[in-house]
Amino acid sequence: MTLILNNAEIEGLLEMGECISVLEDAYQELDAGRGINRQRTDSLAPIGDSDAVYSLKTMDGVIPKLGVSAVRINSDVVTWPEVEGKRRRVKVPAAPGERYVGLVLLFSSITGEPLAIFPDGVVQRLRVAAANGIGAKYLARENTHTVGLLGSGWQAGSQVMAIAAVRDVKKVLCFSPNQDRRKAFCREMSENLEIEFVPVARAKDAIQNADAVVCATSSINHILSQDDVQPGQFISSIKLAEIAPAALSAMNKVVIHLDAPSSTRLTTEGLEVVEVTQGEGDGVGQSFDLSTCPTAFDLLAGRAQGRTSETETTCFLNNVGLGYQFAAIGALLVEKARERGVGNEVPTDWFTEKEHP
Amino acid sequence: MTLILNNAEIEGLLEMGECISVLEDAYQELDAGRGINRQRTDSLAPIGDSDAVYSLKTMDGVIPKLGVSAVRINSDVVTWPEVEGKRRRVKVPAAPGERYVGLVLLFSSITGEPLAIFPDGVVQRLRVAAANGIGAKYLARENTHTVGLLGSGWQAGSQVMAIAAVRDVKKVLCFSPNQDRRKAFCREMSENLEIEFVPVARAKDAIQNADAVVCATSSINHILSQDDVQPGQFISSIKLAEIAPAALSAMNKVVIHLDAPSSTRLTTEGLEVVEVTQGEGDGVGQSFDLSTCPTAFDLLAGRAQGRTSETETTCFLNNVGLGYQFAAIGALLVEKARERGVGNEVPTDWFTEKEHP
Repeated sequence: MTLILNNAEIEGLLEMGECISVLEDAYQELDAGRGINRQRTDSLAPIGDSDAVYSLKTMDGVIPKLGVSAVRINSDVVTWPEVEGKRRRVKVPAAPGERYVGLVLLFSSITGEPLAIFPDGVVQRLRVAAANGIGAKYLARENTHTVGLLGSGWQAGSQVMAIAAVRDVKKVLCFSPNQDRRKAFCREMSENLEIEFVPVARAKDAIQNADAVVCATSSINHILSQDDVQPGQFISSIKLAEIAPAALSAMNKVVIHLDAPSSTRLTTEGLEVVEVTQGEGDGVGQSFDLSTCPTAFDLLAGRAQGRTSETETTCFLNNVGLGYQFAAIGALLVEKARERGVGNEVPTDWFTEKEHP
Repeated sequence: MTLILNNAEIEGLLEMGECISVLEDAYQELDAGRGINRQRTDSLAPIGDSDAVYSLKTMDGVIPKLGVSAVRINSDVVTWPEVEGKRRRVKVPAAPGERYVGLVLLFSSITGEPLAIFPDGVVQRLRVAAANGIGAKYLARENTHTVGLLGSGWQAGSQVMAIAAVRDVKKVLCFSPNQDRRKAFCREMSENLEIEFVPVARAKDAIQNADAVVCATSSINHILSQDDVQPGQFISSIKLAEIAPAALSAMNKVVIHLDAPSSTRLTTEGLEVVEVTQGEGDGVGQSFDLSTCPTAFDLLAGRAQGRTSETETTCFLNNVGLGYQFAAIGALLVEKARERGVGNEVPTDWFTEKEHP
């Protein structure tokens, strides 16, 4: 039988600590050449005369050690409205019932059979957070108790759960621009987690008084500047635009999730990452070279050191996701779902065939 | 609702002539830059200590004009046994019930929603045949009535149907090495199609007495040699190894399905295609340069001429498949299935989500 799971079921099955563990193990497999990641491809096409664009995005991963492979598919309708004078990418839930279309198909890498099909929303969030959890494990001070949180959106809660899975987090100082939103978010999170969430009025109030700072915004402008960063802090980010290049340059250690292409620099201009030829536009603090940063894989393999003192300022940049992550967390998900009898089963024959393909 | 279709249903819905038409139209869209093909990727990994290898193959296509996109996934267990002294690639039906795992997911390129999920077996066969049907339409003589068929396997029947969809085929002379098999095949095909199938004892009997020759074997050796080819014949192939390079060199016009990479030559050595640096191994008739052949797309766009005389010998080589083909035939399939109420419907909500992915 093939499992069909929905996001509510998935949310009830997966715990952050386990997601971090399975990802850590799977990353070591990939690093050792025993796993495969097929990088994402995007196929974009116009939709009639509308301003929207259709986007088919796929990425694959195979983890022999876990006996699984995954294909993640996003069949999106995308628009780029102008927000605050800048173009912003916005997905439109255009499927029936105003829904998004993101799917993961998990297969057995031993028999080939489809093990499960599930939406990608919850797993997408968890895999981003779990990657940052690996960063926090290696780069945050052991005595990290207070976390400054920038953002109160869909990634903010997961990001706190990730750092709380590897450190004893007691208090979160949360800033986001909308006062009502940040208050409601803190109330909700304090109830759900055994952590005190306190809304604060300025980003600097969250940053300056914390052991670690978690950026989890959809901002297209820098939200973390050099002046607010304190010695010994760990900073994590899910979007390269969140941290000013000058702030990155001032840190003692910056680790990136995945290798950035050579000569990729983060600058104060333009969208997220631009290529800068050597020397060009390279004023002090104006750009930061991402391509020389060690990666999460270097940390896990011991090729790069994690935190080595109480006072150094460290940073983890989650620059890009992998189809491989869906295979890792998918393997955990199916194991849990079977243990607890969660999800609907449909005949595997629906998705297999007698005919030689 | 999302349609779940099986191979038997698909076989009942799709007609070859319609498949050729939809492919022809979709190819023109692709050629004009209005469609997208994401080329296939293969991720191969070992399966424990066994001799088998796990292979995850994916390919995508988007056709805005038809309002669809497709992802084709093959989750295969593959072995390479030695057959007649040569390595041969064999897919193992390792999924429960000794089944293969080949899937197509068809989406709307307007709303993003999943329209249908179906196994790839029948469509895989049809799209290969339909591509050759396009070749026959442009390259076979109008008065093609007798077809020489080499092969009696899973592609042979479809290949005849393809040429019969564009020419008035009355008789098929079929050769395959196993006498019982070719006789049974001819009996079965004569009953199913309004065409007389006659088994013949030698390949040359099929080739020399036909207006067109259809190669549809899984042979790893050349089965068509120069000496048997007659003036005015149209030859088609689904596997590059089937035709000797010298035979190709002797033909007046060779059209290839898709552009071959530059300096790709078919030689008498090795498996199918090897790269040969200029001059090297280039004895007369020893290799044939595929990269200078016009393509099916050139024919459709009028950049290359089809047959121009009764006496020229023409050839169509189906060198490679496209994810795009599954989108084209998938669009036709869903239209037909809806018209006739065929297939099982499951809630589209199973494969969509409220959560922003």
